[in-house]
Amino acid sequence: MSTGWGGQVGIVGLGAMGRNLAHQAADRGYSVAVHDPWPQARAAWSASEDGVGPAHAELQDLVLRMDRPRTVLLLVQAGTVTGDHLERLGALLDPGDVVADLGNAHFRDTEARQRRLAERGVHLLGVGISGGAEGARTGASFMGGGDPEAWGRVAPLLETLSARADGRPCCRLLGPGGAGHYVKMVHNGIEYVEMQALSEAYLALREIRGLSLEEMAGTFDAWNGGVGASYLVGLTARVLRTRAPDGEALIARVLDDAGQKGTGRWAVESALELGVPVPTLAEAVFARALSGRWDARRRAARLLEGPAPSRVEADLTGPLEDAVLATRLCGFAQGFALLEAASEAYRWRLDLPAVAEVWRAGCILRGALLPVVARAFRADPRPPDLIAAPEVAAMLAGRQAGWRRAVAQAAEAGLPTPAFASALAVYDGLRARRLGADLISAQRDAFGAHRFRRNDRPGTFHADWSPS
Amino acid sequence: MSTGWGGQVGIVGLGAMGRNLAHQAADRGYSVAVHDPWPQARAAWSASEDGVGPAHAELQDLVLRMDRPRTVLLLVQAGTVTGDHLERLGALLDPGDVVADLGNAHFRDTEARQRRLAERGVHLLGVGISGGAEGARTGASFMGGGDPEAWGRVAPLLETLSARADGRPCCRLLGPGGAGHYVKMVHNGIEYVEMQALSEAYLALREIRGLSLEEMAGTFDAWNGGVGASYLVGLTARVLRTRAPDGEALIARVLDDAGQKGTGRWAVESALELGVPVPTLAEAVFARALSGRWDARRRAARLLEGPAPSRVEADLTGPLEDAVLATRLCGFAQGFALLEAASEAYRWRLDLPAVAEVWRAGCILRGALLPVVARAFRADPRPPDLIAAPEVAAMLAGRQAGWRRAVAQAAEAGLPTPAFASALAVYDGLRARRLGADLISAQRDAFGAHRFRRNDRPGTFHADWSPS
Repeated sequence: MSTGWGGQVGIVGLGAMGRNLAHQAADRGYSVAVHDPWPQARAAWSASEDGVGPAHAELQDLVLRMDRPRTVLLLVQAGTVTGDHLERLGALLDPGDVVADLGNAHFRDTEARQRRLAERGVHLLGVGISGGAEGARTGASFMGGGDPEAWGRVAPLLETLSARADGRPCCRLLGPGGAGHYVKMVHNGIEYVEMQALSEAYLALREIRGLSLEEMAGTFDAWNGGVGASYLVGLTARVLRTRAPDGEALIARVLDDAGQKGTGRWAVESALELGVPVPTLAEAVFARALSGRWDARRRAARLLEGPAPSRVEADLTGPLEDAVLATRLCGFAQGFALLEAASEAYRWRLDLPAVAEVWRAGCILRGALLPVVARAFRADPRPPDLIAAPEVAAMLAGRQAGWRRAVAQAAEAGLPTPAFASALAVYDGLRARRLGADLISAQRDAFGAHRFRRNDRPGTFHADWSPS
Repeated sequence: MSTGWGGQVGIVGLGAMGRNLAHQAADRGYSVAVHDPWPQARAAWSASEDGVGPAHAELQDLVLRMDRPRTVLLLVQAGTVTGDHLERLGALLDPGDVVADLGNAHFRDTEARQRRLAERGVHLLGVGISGGAEGARTGASFMGGGDPEAWGRVAPLLETLSARADGRPCCRLLGPGGAGHYVKMVHNGIEYVEMQALSEAYLALREIRGLSLEEMAGTFDAWNGGVGASYLVGLTARVLRTRAPDGEALIARVLDDAGQKGTGRWAVESALELGVPVPTLAEAVFARALSGRWDARRRAARLLEGPAPSRVEADLTGPLEDAVLATRLCGFAQGFALLEAASEAYRWRLDLPAVAEVWRAGCILRGALLPVVARAFRADPRPPDLIAAPEVAAMLAGRQAGWRRAVAQAAEAGLPTPAFASALAVYDGLRARRLGADLISAQRDAFGAHRFRRNDRPGTFHADWSPS
């Protein structure tokens, strides 16, 4: 294998992500060797492009052709496929070699695999990548986790493959162990919230206002020109305008049933374990699950009473824009609260401002809110809650009235807006002088002797809750 | 140890639950031997009552004093304390002996422990108990899981200690393995929803209507006279009327911060794993977590803008009653959907009508809704969703307008009602002709090539989402 001016890299897995990273690396002067165990993937790989040779059928051949110390990027399916590949790489590689797993591995799996490979002197980095196939081809966002020395070896390559924000690559070592995959998991949880918020706005625009797809696309385009501009807002307009070969709107053919792969769910599971409230992430995950309950939906649609959405006369376009923006900010706040708790629990010393920086370009979350979030964390790296950071609070102050109106009108109109409503409940829950949790505390002590704390002295107490 | 006319039972753990069960068993003619490793618990045990002897300091002494085959009820702290006790019991007991763990063990732990004890021929039953200290003394609800033959041995005792509904004991073997502890976990998840719904009504009555504690207690009493009557509704009135020794309301001294022990969280974790939407359970669990974020609450209370609740002029008492009842029914629906999915996944063949029967008396969920739920499952043991069962749907039909009004007014008034709003979003989500999940599906395919399904033909598809 000849060494290009950028150095050597081996890429394992030639799906959309691996293929595009390989081409990008070759474009940028790296000498690239690729492998995929699946004959179809190798056949689809066009060896002639970019001067990268044909895909190796055997992992061993890729390893043998590389000079030591090697750098291998792994882009295969998360789960057992990743585990199997790392086992085989562990057996083939030499001490000092570095593997970066760019799949969506669970952070605990990554940490177990790091320990296992370390026994042979092989460094495993758990690196979250975001940006989809397009980002892999033109510049993605990389969230690194693992050993700093190993990171130093692979960083020049990943920085080359990164998108840039203000000239700086969106690529950073964020912490040790599984920290990078954890950050990617939280990134995806926040992404679930943004997608759910956009789908709630889409539903309300269509059902309440009766807008055409083209009109809706225009609305999302307009939003994409404002302070809430983002990749996903723009993508929504694009998706609504896409036509099938017969000229009809393609979205009209898509089944109203959203799948999921696991990272959103893992984020909520981790939050439950750490005791961090992320209800809006949970609503977004569960909304997808609800969409798949066709038996219940068919039965309920016939039996459950409610208003027809069209009875709302008001133009909710402005309030819906407010609700989307505010819900997205709350999604960021919940995600960062989770990162902070994980950093504490796992002693990662996560650099939260760096996380916001890394998400500024390349990734699916990119958009005009990220500089706001990044500024908030630069001003105060450990705020009590992101939504109480002054700039964020000010943005929400201007949006809260419209947001309330969207939630209220949707409830009256019979339209589900679980993410808007959940985020608003968190906002008002944090604002509230009192929450009503005192009643829950008293009830728990009354029926289960779970004891309660008082607001006028320290300690825990048990009482006989019987009116005298 | 002399044998009473009811047979013998050993009780391990003399907290409120174990102590009260021991007294009840003795009252009902059982010969009871008790043990607690903790000297303070033994000292607090009054040996003279009911003819039960002093508490044994050594587990071994309790075991030796009992005739074979033995029946032991374990009522110690869930987690490692339970695990340690079961290890020691496993070593001391003989083949054919039965232990019923009545703690809130995780169902997977119970199944691991069942396998371990089975190696020595000792049967472990995982039995959920609900009813608090009072139920343990006067009649509780028992949710059994494990081997039917072992259950047959302990059932006469547990049925004796049970509350009764229509003359039948609220005590049933619901399935094999960890099924009993699983059902108890879901019971607690539904309980979280009911408590959260009551706390949201309490907050709104106080903040919007400015009711006094006595007026609020009167409102809850009135609700407790209607179709939504329940133990927790009545308890709420009782709690609001309880006074501290100085004559002031005790609730006014309780810190606005609700704790939790884990079963609610486990229920949400299991739902995430099984892909069952339980967003309202999640909201209830996270609302407790939010109440404890004092740093964020203090900061946010100063910084976040919103209306003063008092600006709502309307009398929301009726809508709040509707919202509580509807939210509770949605809590049951989400809980039963989870039970059904677990039954399927773990091949438990759970008897869902029997679950509803077991909850009719003795447990914390008891109330006028349980006969409704039980009738729904008797009429159709596998409904697509409980809220679409005809009697439940009819109840919700009469409540949905008020429920919407409560959610809308609370949003406008700046009061958090996460459970009301989440449950309403599920109700409307099931009703909706379309959900907006088609947009999410299209977005996922557009940025991540995750493929989508169509509504006009089978298969999965990938498209180039670019307007031409």
